[in-house]
Amino acid sequence: MRMSKMLMPTLKEVPADAEITSHQLMLRAGMIKKMSSGVYNQLPMGIRVFKKIENIIREELEKKGCQEILCSGLIPAELWKESGRWEVMGAEMFRLKDRNERDYCLGPTHEEVFTDIIRQEITSYKQLPLNLYQIQIKYRDERRPRFGVMRTKTFTMKDAYSFDVDEAGLDKSYQDMYDAYTNIFARCKLDNSPVQADSGAIGGSTSAEFMVKSEVGEDEVVFCSGCDYAANIEKAQSVNHEIVKEEMKELKEVHTPGVSTINALEEFFKIESGKFAKTLIYEADGKTVAVVVRGDREVNETKVANAIGEVIEFELAREEVVKAVTGAEVGFAGPIGIKADYLFIDQEIAEKNNLVVGANKTEYHIENANYGRDFEGVVGDFRNVAQGDKCTKCGSSLEIARGVEVGHIFKLGTKYSETMNANYIDKDGKSKPIVMGCYGIGVERTAAAVIEQHYDENGIMWPLSIAPYQVVVVPVNIKKEEHKEAAEKIYAQLQEMGVEVLLDDRDERAGVKFKDSDLIGIPMRITVGKDIVDGNVEFKLRDCQDKEVISLEEVKSRVEAEFVKNEVKLG
Amino acid sequence: MRMSKMLMPTLKEVPADAEITSHQLMLRAGMIKKMSSGVYNQLPMGIRVFKKIENIIREELEKKGCQEILCSGLIPAELWKESGRWEVMGAEMFRLKDRNERDYCLGPTHEEVFTDIIRQEITSYKQLPLNLYQIQIKYRDERRPRFGVMRTKTFTMKDAYSFDVDEAGLDKSYQDMYDAYTNIFARCKLDNSPVQADSGAIGGSTSAEFMVKSEVGEDEVVFCSGCDYAANIEKAQSVNHEIVKEEMKELKEVHTPGVSTINALEEFFKIESGKFAKTLIYEADGKTVAVVVRGDREVNETKVANAIGEVIEFELAREEVVKAVTGAEVGFAGPIGIKADYLFIDQEIAEKNNLVVGANKTEYHIENANYGRDFEGVVGDFRNVAQGDKCTKCGSSLEIARGVEVGHIFKLGTKYSETMNANYIDKDGKSKPIVMGCYGIGVERTAAAVIEQHYDENGIMWPLSIAPYQVVVVPVNIKKEEHKEAAEKIYAQLQEMGVEVLLDDRDERAGVKFKDSDLIGIPMRITVGKDIVDGNVEFKLRDCQDKEVISLEEVKSRVEAEFVKNEVKLG
Repeated sequence: MRMSKMLMPTLKEVPADAEITSHQLMLRAGMIKKMSSGVYNQLPMGIRVFKKIENIIREELEKKGCQEILCSGLIPAELWKESGRWEVMGAEMFRLKDRNERDYCLGPTHEEVFTDIIRQEITSYKQLPLNLYQIQIKYRDERRPRFGVMRTKTFTMKDAYSFDVDEAGLDKSYQDMYDAYTNIFARCKLDNSPVQADSGAIGGSTSAEFMVKSEVGEDEVVFCSGCDYAANIEKAQSVNHEIVKEEMKELKEVHTPGVSTINALEEFFKIESGKFAKTLIYEADGKTVAVVVRGDREVNETKVANAIGEVIEFELAREEVVKAVTGAEVGFAGPIGIKADYLFIDQEIAEKNNLVVGANKTEYHIENANYGRDFEGVVGDFRNVAQGDKCTKCGSSLEIARGVEVGHIFKLGTKYSETMNANYIDKDGKSKPIVMGCYGIGVERTAAAVIEQHYDENGIMWPLSIAPYQVVVVPVNIKKEEHKEAAEKIYAQLQEMGVEVLLDDRDERAGVKFKDSDLIGIPMRITVGKDIVDGNVEFKLRDCQDKEVISLEEVKSRVEAEFVKNEVKLG
Repeated sequence: MRMSKMLMPTLKEVPADAEITSHQLMLRAGMIKKMSSGVYNQLPMGIRVFKKIENIIREELEKKGCQEILCSGLIPAELWKESGRWEVMGAEMFRLKDRNERDYCLGPTHEEVFTDIIRQEITSYKQLPLNLYQIQIKYRDERRPRFGVMRTKTFTMKDAYSFDVDEAGLDKSYQDMYDAYTNIFARCKLDNSPVQADSGAIGGSTSAEFMVKSEVGEDEVVFCSGCDYAANIEKAQSVNHEIVKEEMKELKEVHTPGVSTINALEEFFKIESGKFAKTLIYEADGKTVAVVVRGDREVNETKVANAIGEVIEFELAREEVVKAVTGAEVGFAGPIGIKADYLFIDQEIAEKNNLVVGANKTEYHIENANYGRDFEGVVGDFRNVAQGDKCTKCGSSLEIARGVEVGHIFKLGTKYSETMNANYIDKDGKSKPIVMGCYGIGVERTAAAVIEQHYDENGIMWPLSIAPYQVVVVPVNIKKEEHKEAAEKIYAQLQEMGVEVLLDDRDERAGVKFKDSDLIGIPMRITVGKDIVDGNVEFKLRDCQDKEVISLEEVKSRVEAEFVKNEVKLG
């Protein structure tokens, strides 16, 4: 491609509204263009990268026997009503009506559609296993679109669904996808870690997220410093703090005027926050939920919601609800005598004696509260892991890092096949539900994560595998016939070899051209300058400061060597 | 691909609700699966064909210097309001709101979005010309989805937009696309004709449709039997019938009780329908429109709407409106004294004397009405061409055929750049509107049109260029080791060559396998049967009855020869 003919609107300045590096560089390199909040158009330099990622995904999935299909993004509501998710999905799902007032959604995910296809086509165990995937535009009405293509209303997703006769089959399908994902992200040169994850609204048992560590990541990930344990914050668990069992003391009501925060309590009682039990009140689909954790802990809302079961709306209770449940002003909730529909007690609370708790009475607290003696409830793990907590696997310290989720794999089991009657006849002649898995990769987000790991002060440093173009040929001065002619020859030669090559035939200074090729991140640059009189050109890798002077005859082999080194196929 | 592992739900029976051949065969070959009215999912055998068509489109467009981008299908309403089309587009456009009640549409076409991108990036004549395209899912809420993928609510479209400095530039861009389209459809082996077309809601001056003649086509196309004139029925013109000028006679009101149809009038007046002028009443955005054509003619509503200008709603008037305009019961409308906002007179009426017209009085007609003397109005071409009419170019007879529109190219001019302020600074330092063209191809519809032209009683006969797989290897009996082993070897050899090959390793009778490969339309079949003891296999082309016996050594060259013959690249 001749750069003089290309739509490649590079920017010198950092766009004001782009907070993170990948967003800034995608805009500056002319890869994407914002149309409205969370809605982007892909320009030539962008779509080429995204399509390369898509093709890597295709190749790795097809090695595992996956077959590509393409489902409609417009989905009739009936399917979602059948699975029970029409109501479960909140404002994130775009809903619309056709001219006959029939309800549709724009697919935020496609479990229902794939299950519907399969239940119509699969009758026998002989047709299984099967793994189908699509690369398709998804629509999600994000509350807060941000960080460029990291969180948008519409994006490209590869979603795959596996169909097996039993759990053992699912285990193999899941492992195949785990391996495929590992290969895909390795080919994109993404340093990533698969972490245990909560399955969320999709449902199912086991799930793993492929997380790229990044300061700009929206997710918190817990990593063990001593073993391979890794989980996202919703899912992560830690050992309970060492329990020092004291003699139970007598309950004592204390007047605590104006003391309603943990800090104020610490000061008032002169004890540390871990000796307090704080009680938070939530509303879950109209029910009231009280959760008791240590004063220095955070409630893990996902764990609480999972303990209740299927929950659609889950949020901190409104003031009037808190008052109704506790019979007191806000700030004095406690587990003793509270009138909530659910009472969940974090294990650390159940195993600690003589805690300070709210008295459910305005301006009063209670000392020496003890689980079992003074209050009871559902005991479990309802807290977030904190930095320095101990690993449940090996006891080492847990670290918390931020990460970008680029892929997610789930064992769904029979959740969808049972509600939607996707059955097969087994060898024994019996009808059984198909055992499913589902597997997603965000395409544009993967590209953004690659940038977050591959850039310098001059711009993007694309790995050869997903670079929009692989080589740029820069004649230093397009007006000099000998520069132009040699550059054209190299350009033609590289095209002939099957290299994706840019010719910077613009009438610009060499410095401008170098800046642009560095910004857009082309892995190899061949500069045709004054050395051409000796038949030499300059060869430079984007991710390396050194410049090599090579002869025209060496161009082919030098470029080829990079393809071999990077294990990228030519042409 | 091993057919035993493939999702390929072929059907023996013709599905009851599939009216046309391509729809039946796409369903029977397991290419597509209906999800709801006008909404289809693409199965493996389908998506492979559609993607091949997409790639042919990409190759031919990139030869012309077009650059691929990808716009969001979700489009904020603001852009459509700016162009004035938010209201113009009727129920066909899907509209929806996000969680903040902001309006969006699902793009039925993308003029606004491309214009918006360009006006932000293009400032100078130096950046032009530019031709951008995308291959993307479009959404149109069709009133009557039908004929499988021919008319659906969601489909894949290649849409391209050209941007030039002037009309001469546009002429070149238009011609480039005309040539590219010709090549694309030729590579798909579609016998098609570009025909003149009306520009419709998209606007602009010149436009051409690429029409595939087909009995099942939804469009009527007029072809000249004597020259290359071709136009769709909305646009087509014909010579006025020979005019026999008679002496004007005196007006005469005739009582015609119960005579309100052309047939009844023919009988009553004992003259042929061409001597009557029929007057039809329409409503156009609240205005009343009367159109007068010969009794044996049809009104061309597109021509009438174009004569009015921009019209959103255009339909036959309701009974009460007819009564108000004519002052009579329905059936007695005529041009004399009619109270319509617009009165359009077809040229044939203006050039004919002594016509019978309605009297605008219940149960009365008028004889000897003459244009100019008795009534006046806007004279023009407001009729449909009829079979046997004479060509305006050469005078030969015009034929009417049915066709499927697979592509459409438009000269838009400055319609969008003017309303949306997409300007550039010209050499002379002046700001001028960018001159645009737009160009579409329906991907799935193109595949359907290919089937309509390439099938027999056994199924589809794909051209090699877009076949889902190019060769099928059929071991007659998979349980015979020698059949299986030789088939596996050929399968591996062909894969090695870069051929897209199916191995029918199912434990089925040879007849079943042949039926399936004929149905799905694989161009070459290699059968491994009893001749394998002599090192021979059977080679058969899908579109040819002959079977050739060739040796194992000849397989490679025989297959290669077909690629050469069909000008399809291997691998």
